[in-house]
Amino acid sequence: SDELFLISGPCVIEDEKIMMTVAERLKEISERLGIKIIYKSSFMKDNRSSLDYYIGPGLEAGVKILAKVKEQFGFTLLTDVHYPEQCAPVAEVVDVLQIPAYLCMQTTLVVAAAKTGRVVNLKHGQFLAPENMKHPVKKIEDSGNDQIILTERGYTFGYNDLIVDPRSFYHMNKTGYPVVFDVTHAIRKYGIPSKDSKGGAREYLPVLARAGVAAGVDGLFVEAHTCPSEALCDAASQLDINYLEEFLKPLIELHNVEVKYRASAQELA
Amino acid sequence: SDELFLISGPCVIEDEKIMMTVAERLKEISERLGIKIIYKSSFMKDNRSSLDYYIGPGLEAGVKILAKVKEQFGFTLLTDVHYPEQCAPVAEVVDVLQIPAYLCMQTTLVVAAAKTGRVVNLKHGQFLAPENMKHPVKKIEDSGNDQIILTERGYTFGYNDLIVDPRSFYHMNKTGYPVVFDVTHAIRKYGIPSKDSKGGAREYLPVLARAGVAAGVDGLFVEAHTCPSEALCDAASQLDINYLEEFLKPLIELHNVEVKYRASAQELA
Amino acid sequence: SDELFLISGPCVIEDEKIMMTVAERLKEISERLGIKIIYKSSFMKDNRSSLDYYIGPGLEAGVKILAKVKEQFGFTLLTDVHYPEQCAPVAEVVDVLQIPAYLCMQTTLVVAAAKTGRVVNLKHGQFLAPENMKHPVKKIEDSGNDQIILTERGYTFGYNDLIVDPRSFYHMNKTGYPVVFDVTHAIRKYGIPSKDSKGGAREYLPVLARAGVAAGVDGLFVEAHTCPSEALCDAASQLDINYLEEFLKPLIELHNVEVKYRASAQELA
Amino acid sequence: SDELFLISGPCVIEDEKIMMTVAERLKEISERLGIKIIYKSSFMKDNRSSLDYYIGPGLEAGVKILAKVKEQFGFTLLTDVHYPEQCAPVAEVVDVLQIPAYLCMQTTLVVAAAKTGRVVNLKHGQFLAPENMKHPVKKIEDSGNDQIILTERGYTFGYNDLIVDPRSFYHMNKTGYPVVFDVTHAIRKYGIPSKDSKGGAREYLPVLARAGVAAGVDGLFVEAHTCPSEALCDAASQLDINYLEEFLKPLIELHNVEVKYRASAQELA
Repeated sequence: SDELFLISGPCVIEDEKIMMTVAERLKEISERLGIKIIYKSSFMKDNRSSLDYYIGPGLEAGVKILAKVKEQFGFTLLTDVHYPEQCAPVAEVVDVLQIPAYLCMQTTLVVAAAKTGRVVNLKHGQFLAPENMKHPVKKIEDSGNDQIILTERGYTFGYNDLIVDPRSFYHMNKTGYPVVFDVTHAIRKYGIPSKDSKGGAREYLPVLARAGVAAGVDGLFVEAHTCPSEALCDAASQLDINYLEEFLKPLIELHNVEVKYRASAQELA
Repeated sequence: SDELFLISGPCVIEDEKIMMTVAERLKEISERLGIKIIYKSSFMKDNRSSLDYYIGPGLEAGVKILAKVKEQFGFTLLTDVHYPEQCAPVAEVVDVLQIPAYLCMQTTLVVAAAKTGRVVNLKHGQFLAPENMKHPVKKIEDSGNDQIILTERGYTFGYNDLIVDPRSFYHMNKTGYPVVFDVTHAIRKYGIPSKDSKGGAREYLPVLARAGVAAGVDGLFVEAHTCPSEALCDAASQLDINYLEEFLKPLIELHNVEVKYRASAQELA
Repeated sequence: SDELFLISGPCVIEDEKIMMTVAERLKEISERLGIKIIYKSSFMKDNRSSLDYYIGPGLEAGVKILAKVKEQFGFTLLTDVHYPEQCAPVAEVVDVLQIPAYLCMQTTLVVAAAKTGRVVNLKHGQFLAPENMKHPVKKIEDSGNDQIILTERGYTFGYNDLIVDPRSFYHMNKTGYPVVFDVTHAIRKYGIPSKDSKGGAREYLPVLARAGVAAGVDGLFVEAHTCPSEALCDAASQLDINYLEEFLKPLIELHNVEVKYRASAQELA
Repeated sequence: SDELFLISGPCVIEDEKIMMTVAERLKEISERLGIKIIYKSSFMKDNRSSLDYYIGPGLEAGVKILAKVKEQFGFTLLTDVHYPEQCAPVAEVVDVLQIPAYLCMQTTLVVAAAKTGRVVNLKHGQFLAPENMKHPVKKIEDSGNDQIILTERGYTFGYNDLIVDPRSFYHMNKTGYPVVFDVTHAIRKYGIPSKDSKGGAREYLPVLARAGVAAGVDGLFVEAHTCPSEALCDAASQLDINYLEEFLKPLIELHNVEVKYRASAQELA
């Protein structure tokens, strides 16, 4: 479809009430803007900086909450998997299995996700030249699955900083699969805990999102929370859901212009 | 003004016939698209890789040709200066004095350009964090000149590659001066002579230009030539002027959307 | 100990004859140079670019071969683990469990390795600021294990290139644990298959190793093979074992000078 | 010569008394360590961040002070030139003309320096792949001068940070000319004024210098001052001259080992 879609939800699965409130707000935005939304949240954060930080409710409890969101609001669901054995049980309920960026090259994991037959959302590793994303894509195809999404979330730039390279969208679009831009992770400042408000650079969200959309994407990925400063993960980078609708409006318009001229980008290129 | 403007012309001043043909084509494009165009060409390339390469006709002969272009087509003129003593004589004819990116921190040059009273186009050094562009800006202001343009042209990314960071436009816009995106220099591959067609990556031109415009610019900078492969400088990166009009159309539309939502970018930020 | 130690062996476990020949050569070098050597080889490469590439003999068969090497030559053993359930069975035979660089932030894996009670060699992620290595270190300590080694293997620098930052050794040394420099992985050129001789830049091995040793390390990591061009993994980057002894000699001397002045580095710093 | 040499002195020419005291201290160190020292100081800093900062005494007054240093202590002199017309008058007194890193690609300047017949010290631009230093080298040779020194001083790494790549020494050594490592500039933190003590990261000086020397250099460049915190430029990065002797001792020993094995580095490479 030529319509921009959105992947959104709280970073990690928290209290059920928060999950449902976010879902309700997303439902309203989806209807008002006429934008398809995939509900995303993680049952397990396996790469946090400390054993003391919240990592989510775990697979079983987490999937249960996601199932309720689906049941009540009808959303397509997305969550991330970290170990091969998680893929099959998650796939019973969740529609899109996401491979975390650090793990995009882990063959066993990628193949296990592919073999569930569900859509696989492959995040672009912060250390991988974008044209090399064709390699994990091929692993999924070779496992008999051609339902693939590719997601950009920023590339290593010096220490503790990520850069969004518009050329990355060019390369990922060449695979022929839908391309998504995860803008809220692109503004994380590693080296600063995410509960510290300096751990994210939200001032860049509009400019990055606009650039990415104009460079050519099919979907956006925006983690959103009812109260980001109290979020249990990525507190410094999630978007306050109250700003989401205004945030999206220019992006939808920019996307419509970009789609109109997508073919001409390829001709000139 | 809210209208996107264009800085264009051949990289270096070549044979008068080529200069006039490019000017004529730019004039037509300007009229058909209703876009203001500033005519740019260099009288001297002072940072070429070899003494054997063409460096342009020199100040006197070069300015004479630019004057003819102005006289015949009415263009505002832009050229770059490399040494302080060039500023005054160039300013007699040329409207916009450009400080080359490598030289953006050279105080004597920047001050000499500022003191001509002409508009100064300050290119963003490939080695300078974009927020630090406020320093050379202040040098110009402190020299009594507030007619300033800032131009992005890519930032050092590993070896022999430049990256365009959308956040750079955010920072340069905060100065309050017009911001331009020089897209043809951003695709140069240093380490490969520009006469080798691999010395530029033109396939990225549409995606980069679209991203930059959506990130928020006032003008574009696109070097153009009637036959780039035979151009005497930057043969691998200049745009064939036959493609320029189609190249600009989506950019104008994207710019119109971005301008409409520019204020909202700042509110969310 | 103040003596430089070496981690070496073929990248991936191949035919038993090759494994034994390399071990024999390493034994000779160890005796002639008086250098302690840890024998390293992988039973599984989980991040190769294609499903068609060799990934090793698997855990059971691989560990069996490593056990023979230990039995026959008395080497301390090191191998890498990719999934938590591999840790306990590997730890039955192998002395040092290595966390791959891409996986250094995966909590479940790091904790599972720590809980075996074996030494954990934590590779420095190509995307992690070196001072942030203290976080996975703390996860291991918090799991009750303080037998830790940290290994540098290059940091993301633009696309398809790694850089070795001498400051990384400074930061890793501050943890108080032994620091190792994996020089053969630092010269890999991603984006080029390792069976292509351009997939590695061996010309940099001496200069990188010398710089790293003088910056302050306790050990070196050099993958070595009897015939690298026919190696089943990292053919372009492993060192021909015939060159290993000459390669090490200056490094041992440089290490001895560095150790003598290690305290003064900290005073001036 | 196989002996390590040193380029040192205060960053910018200050009060004559300071200049002489530093020279006296350098003379003592030179004699005690048996190391040849070239006295360096700048008469003009043309790339400071603000018009309000001290830029030095200017060419005439500056060269006069340098001449006194030479007369009294017998040092070979080095200073940097920024504009072509400075080269001839500087060359009347100063033995080594230095091209600043940002200006290494400026043909007119480089040629003017070359044509004085003095030694030219070409600093490696923070934006130039090290193998491309052969281009400005060739410009000097083509101007009839083969007395060239190449100096590394760090390469752009993300924003406001420089990295020292050991591979740079490999490439610069391939030119066949003496290679120097300027370690005090490599620790500057741009974006922070040098009068702020956070504007430099002195803790890295020993580790960087040791790595660079072991990678293969002929000389070191260390700006030194009697009281860096009160220095009029680069206050955060110059070395306190009281630490210089201890700083140099391990470097001389490392250099002696490296020289002994320099040929073997090339054989393995």
